[in-house]
Amino acid sequence: MKVLILGGAGMVGRKLAERLARDGRLGNAEITGLTLYDVVAPQKPAGAKFPVETLTGDLPAVGETDKLVASQPDVIFHLAAIVSGEAEQEFEKGYRINLQGTMNLLESIRTAYDGAPRKPRLVFTSSIAVFGAPFPEKIPDEFFTTPLTSYGTQKAIGELLIADYTRKGMLDGVGIRLPTICVRPGKPNKAASGFFSNIIREPLAGHEAVLPVSDDVMHWHASPRAAIGFLQHAATIDGARLGARRNLSMPGLAVTVGQQIEALRKVAGEKVVARIKRVPDPFVQEIVAGWPRNFETRRSIELGFKAETSFEEIIRVHIDDELGGKVA
Amino acid sequence: MKVLILGGAGMVGRKLAERLARDGRLGNAEITGLTLYDVVAPQKPAGAKFPVETLTGDLPAVGETDKLVASQPDVIFHLAAIVSGEAEQEFEKGYRINLQGTMNLLESIRTAYDGAPRKPRLVFTSSIAVFGAPFPEKIPDEFFTTPLTSYGTQKAIGELLIADYTRKGMLDGVGIRLPTICVRPGKPNKAASGFFSNIIREPLAGHEAVLPVSDDVMHWHASPRAAIGFLQHAATIDGARLGARRNLSMPGLAVTVGQQIEALRKVAGEKVVARIKRVPDPFVQEIVAGWPRNFETRRSIELGFKAETSFEEIIRVHIDDELGGKVA
Repeated sequence: MKVLILGGAGMVGRKLAERLARDGRLGNAEITGLTLYDVVAPQKPAGAKFPVETLTGDLPAVGETDKLVASQPDVIFHLAAIVSGEAEQEFEKGYRINLQGTMNLLESIRTAYDGAPRKPRLVFTSSIAVFGAPFPEKIPDEFFTTPLTSYGTQKAIGELLIADYTRKGMLDGVGIRLPTICVRPGKPNKAASGFFSNIIREPLAGHEAVLPVSDDVMHWHASPRAAIGFLQHAATIDGARLGARRNLSMPGLAVTVGQQIEALRKVAGEKVVARIKRVPDPFVQEIVAGWPRNFETRRSIELGFKAETSFEEIIRVHIDDELGGKVA
Repeated sequence: MKVLILGGAGMVGRKLAERLARDGRLGNAEITGLTLYDVVAPQKPAGAKFPVETLTGDLPAVGETDKLVASQPDVIFHLAAIVSGEAEQEFEKGYRINLQGTMNLLESIRTAYDGAPRKPRLVFTSSIAVFGAPFPEKIPDEFFTTPLTSYGTQKAIGELLIADYTRKGMLDGVGIRLPTICVRPGKPNKAASGFFSNIIREPLAGHEAVLPVSDDVMHWHASPRAAIGFLQHAATIDGARLGARRNLSMPGLAVTVGQQIEALRKVAGEKVVARIKRVPDPFVQEIVAGWPRNFETRRSIELGFKAETSFEEIIRVHIDDELGGKVA
C-alpha cells in the first residue's frame, strides 16, 4: 500500500507519519511507500521499514496535484491547509490554498485513476469550523453548515466536493471534522484557540500560561493521539458503511475550562495549576463565543471512531507522548 | 436602479424580466436599466419604460463576468445554470458552468465594487436539490445539505460562497432554494420532475399526459408567479434581517399527486382529469423517491416570502397567466 500525506510537515501530518513508520501498516495492509508533501520540507519519520519520500511545493500551482497523484497512491491524506486566522486575514490566499488546492487535487485524482481498477481512499481533514453560531446545546450529525469564517467555508466546500466525487465513483473519500486538538504540543501560538492547550502544556512544563476566558467556557477536544486514530480508521473503514454521507463529525470530549483545570489539578497537583494566570481578554472571549461547544456524534461513534472520555486521560496522553511521562 | 439578470432567457428569467418591465420598479426603487444575459439570446420584455440590453455569452469564460458587472448594477439575479439532469450526465460541463461560473461572478463582483459605497444585492437561485435522502418528514431550516446530484452539490457550494463573500462585506447576497416550479409552462420536457406539471398543463390544454408514479407521491411546489415574488422579495429585503445565514428554503406547498389531480378535478372537471394516463415507470419512481417531499420553512415565512396555500390556487395561477383564463 502506497500512502501520500499532503500537509506532511504539520503537527498532525508529522505524528501520522511517525505512527505509520512505527506500525509499518495501515489496517491490514503493509505499507510499501510513503510520500510526505508540504509547503515546507517535511521530516522523515524515524525507523520506517518502507521507503519515505519528502517533497516540497505549492499545492494549488498548475500541474502540482497531477504530479502528486501520478503514481496512484492507495491512500491519500489531505491535511494541507492554511489555518483559520490566516485564511480569514488573507482572503485570496485562503481560497487559493484551501479551496483551489482541494479542487485541483480532486480533478487530478479523477484523471489519474480514470479506468483504474481501484480508486484511492482520500481522507480529508475537515473542521468543526464548518459550523457557525447560534448552535443547539449539542450539535447533532444532521445540523447544517453555516460557517462564520472563510476557513470553515473552504472546509465545508471540500466536504461537498468529496461527497460528490465519491458518489460518482471517481474516488473513495471520507471527510472527518476534527475537534480542537488538545493538548497541542510545541510553543504557544497566536491562534485564538491556543489557550485551551497552553493552560495545560505550559504549566506541566514549569511555565506560566495565560487564560483569557472565564472558567465556564465549554469546548470540544480530542488529543493528538486520538486524531491520529481517527485518520487511521478513516483510511481503512469500509466505504459501504458510510453510504453517500461521507463527512463525519468526529467524537470528542466537551469540557469547560474549569473542568480542564480541575483535571490538571488531579493529574499534576496544585503547584502546577497555580501557574495559570487569569487575564481576561474581551477580544478572545468574543471569538470563542461563536465556536461550537458540544456535539452529539452518534454516527462516528457507531462507525468505530474513538476519542478520550475524560480530560485527565487527555492530559496523561500529553504527558506520555510529549513529556516522556514526567511533569516539571 | 440598474438590474442584471444572468440566465435571462430561461423560464424564470423571462418571467422576471416581464414582471420588472410591467412594474417599472423593484421595491421602492425605479428601474433605470435592465441587462439580460444568457447562453442563448434573451427576449426583450414588452413595454419596458427603461432601456433593456440583451447579451449572449459563455458565463465561465475568462473575463466574461468581469464585463458583466463592470457597470456596477445594483441588483444581480444569478439564475444561470445548466439543469440537474445535464449536470449529472456531463460532469465537467456542470462544474464549469454551475460552479466555476458562480465563482468567477463572485470574484468579479469583489473586484468591480472594491471601494464602492454600496455593494450589489446578489440573488442566487439555489434548489431543494441541496438536500439528499433520507429526510425527516418535513425538512427543517437547520437540516444539513447532503446533495445526491452534482447539480445539488454545485448549488450548495454556491450558497456557502455567497454567505462568505457577504460576511466579508464584498457583496450582499441572498440565496433562495426554489421549490419545484409548477405548473411549468411550455412543452413537456424530459426532466424526471416534468410529470408534476405535465399532468396539469397538458389536460388543461386538451392533451393527454402521462403519470409515471403512484398517487401517493408527495412533492414540494410553488407557481412561477410565486417564484417571481420570491425573487423580488429577495432583491429588496433588508439584509440585516437575514444576518449571517443568507440561504433560505422558500415556502411552498406539499401535496401528493392524488391531491394535485383532485384539485384539477375541482377546478376543471372530470373531462380534463380523464386525460391523465397512468403509465408506471420504475426509473422515474426511483429518482423521485430520493427527492424532498415536504419542508418546515419557518424562517422564510417569517421574513415575508409567500407561496400558494392550495393546489387549486396553483392551477388557477396557470390558467390566468398562461391560458388567458380559459380551459380547453
